[in-house]
Amino acid sequence: MDVGIGTFTEMSFDEAVEATRAALAERGFGVLHEIDFTATLKNKIDKDIERVLILGACNPEFAGEAYDINKDVALMIPCNVVVRESGGGCVIEAQNPDLLSNIISGGLRDLADELAADLRSMMDDLTR
Amino acid sequence: MDVGIGTFTEMSFDEAVEATRAALAERGFGVLHEIDFTATLKNKIDKDIERVLILGACNPEFAGEAYDINKDVALMIPCNVVVRESGGGCVIEAQNPDLLSNIISGGLRDLADELAADLRSMMDDLTR
Repeated sequence: MDVGIGTFTEMSFDEAVEATRAALAERGFGVLHEIDFTATLKNKIDKDIERVLILGACNPEFAGEAYDINKDVALMIPCNVVVRESGGGCVIEAQNPDLLSNIISGGLRDLADELAADLRSMMDDLTR
Repeated sequence: MDVGIGTFTEMSFDEAVEATRAALAERGFGVLHEIDFTATLKNKIDKDIERVLILGACNPEFAGEAYDINKDVALMIPCNVVVRESGGGCVIEAQNPDLLSNIISGGLRDLADELAADLRSMMDDLTR
């Protein structure tokens, strides 16, 4: 299983972040938090890396249904969507929802498949 | 593999949250974000659940080292630490770092083992 569902885009970092936010919103995902990973590492341990933004995406309908199936789901919420600079463009990548169904018992397969399909279609749209 | 490393405590929810914050800080974990999962579900889809708080914990030294090994690590940062009401007390549970080493290639085993040991010792301290 791949840990991420992602794509590469030639967009600039700021464009890619903007496009990712819009694509998530279109599909009913809220962003519960944002982590500027680059700034975190710089501020805390003076380490330099490329620009990396982590968006904590959550579709509340999915999250509520999944939590009813198994409360351990809270350990995997929200779904990280990462935008990072890479080779003249950006990688945009989401945590693969198959993780949920593979490691948490109780029958999350259908929900995870639906979520994964949503994320794959989003990544197709973001590929330019 | 268990998805979480956790414990049960008879502390009230507010006490458990306070104790968890203190225990994380003692061990060098910052909290990068907090999600009031209960409020999120109530506000977004009018769903009622018990009190659940998700703390996004991150030890920047670990995170920086792990990111150098494999950039997919950004998909799994921060490490969720969940406090939720359960049966007259609270469950406190952290995402099992073995997840990192099991699903991301490149040799994260030693880092994950160290992090897991830290979290296990923290959960022992939180068991009262």
